[in-house]
Amino acid sequence: MKILLIGASGTIGQAIDRELSQRHQVVRIGRNSGELRVDIRDTDSIRALFEQTGGFDALVSAAGAVHFGALEEMSAAQYAIGLEDKLMGQVNLLLIGRDYANDGASFTLTSGILSEDPIRYGSSASMVNGALDSFVRSAAIELPRGLRVNAVSPTVLVESMDNFAPYFRGFKPVPGAEVALAYAKSVEGAQTGQVYRVL
Amino acid sequence: MKILLIGASGTIGQAIDRELSQRHQVVRIGRNSGELRVDIRDTDSIRALFEQTGGFDALVSAAGAVHFGALEEMSAAQYAIGLEDKLMGQVNLLLIGRDYANDGASFTLTSGILSEDPIRYGSSASMVNGALDSFVRSAAIELPRGLRVNAVSPTVLVESMDNFAPYFRGFKPVPGAEVALAYAKSVEGAQTGQVYRVL
Repeated sequence: MKILLIGASGTIGQAIDRELSQRHQVVRIGRNSGELRVDIRDTDSIRALFEQTGGFDALVSAAGAVHFGALEEMSAAQYAIGLEDKLMGQVNLLLIGRDYANDGASFTLTSGILSEDPIRYGSSASMVNGALDSFVRSAAIELPRGLRVNAVSPTVLVESMDNFAPYFRGFKPVPGAEVALAYAKSVEGAQTGQVYRVL
Repeated sequence: MKILLIGASGTIGQAIDRELSQRHQVVRIGRNSGELRVDIRDTDSIRALFEQTGGFDALVSAAGAVHFGALEEMSAAQYAIGLEDKLMGQVNLLLIGRDYANDGASFTLTSGILSEDPIRYGSSASMVNGALDSFVRSAAIELPRGLRVNAVSPTVLVESMDNFAPYFRGFKPVPGAEVALAYAKSVEGAQTGQVYRVL
């Protein structure tokens, strides 16, 4: 398979790369690094990306920023960051990419466990992750040509605990390699409209 | 209790009004009707509303539009309608309203069953409802002064089936009066961070 991996240089992206590149052609894509570049906040940039990639069998997105901050300090502008980047950035990869996708291709987006298990400072992440999970369930039933879409909703990664441990006290972190399996299930399996929780 | 009811003239709003006005002072608020007016897409309009209402014990929102359309025809602009109106409109009622809310006041927002049980043309509604449910879970753990926030996630209403039946084939509609009970539970109960599904 020819797999487009958006966010290839991130912690999750690298783990996905290690899992999928054993069996597939992985095109590594990032905002500031990778074989190809894309800013998922910009639909023109997304379109330009697919003009370069041409057809593909799977798109995996492990990209997208949200703003973390105390609810007290959060305003509409801070929520807009996550809505434009992690949410609509990934949704636009599907909306635009579907025209370039080969028949039966899959899209795999990344949400996260904060949708159901919230932490302080995480209300934007919760909002965006919940939106992605529900979008995927719904979009799946309307996709043509055997196209599929799933989300992976991981908890915090072992590899991220150096930075995030104080925010995720009591969470059992999972190794990136384990999270990557969920992406392999989405890409190499046949399910659609699923949210794969990795806890 | 002094209860601000946003979207008072809608199908759900009227049912909430009938339930809560038996026991409480309900201030009826709408975009184009009601004792007071607000456009929840506009933060200045929201601020102006609370300057008029002053303190309150509960805010209930049954307001917010989303665009319904085939996934194939949906673009970022169509999703933006729901993100700015039903999602951030209701979120901004909380973000701005918290400064005016009396200690222990509750906020009750409206999502909907499409977050988990999708229909054709409903991908924006699914996205927005999922975002609201997760936001409520998360915001609840950071609210000060005993403030509470819940969501009500109803299925389609009996009263709406004249317009919506073709889109909701196989769904068991519920009477507005039953949906209104979930709002009473949120307002008059003591729970927070809950999503009350009414099926």
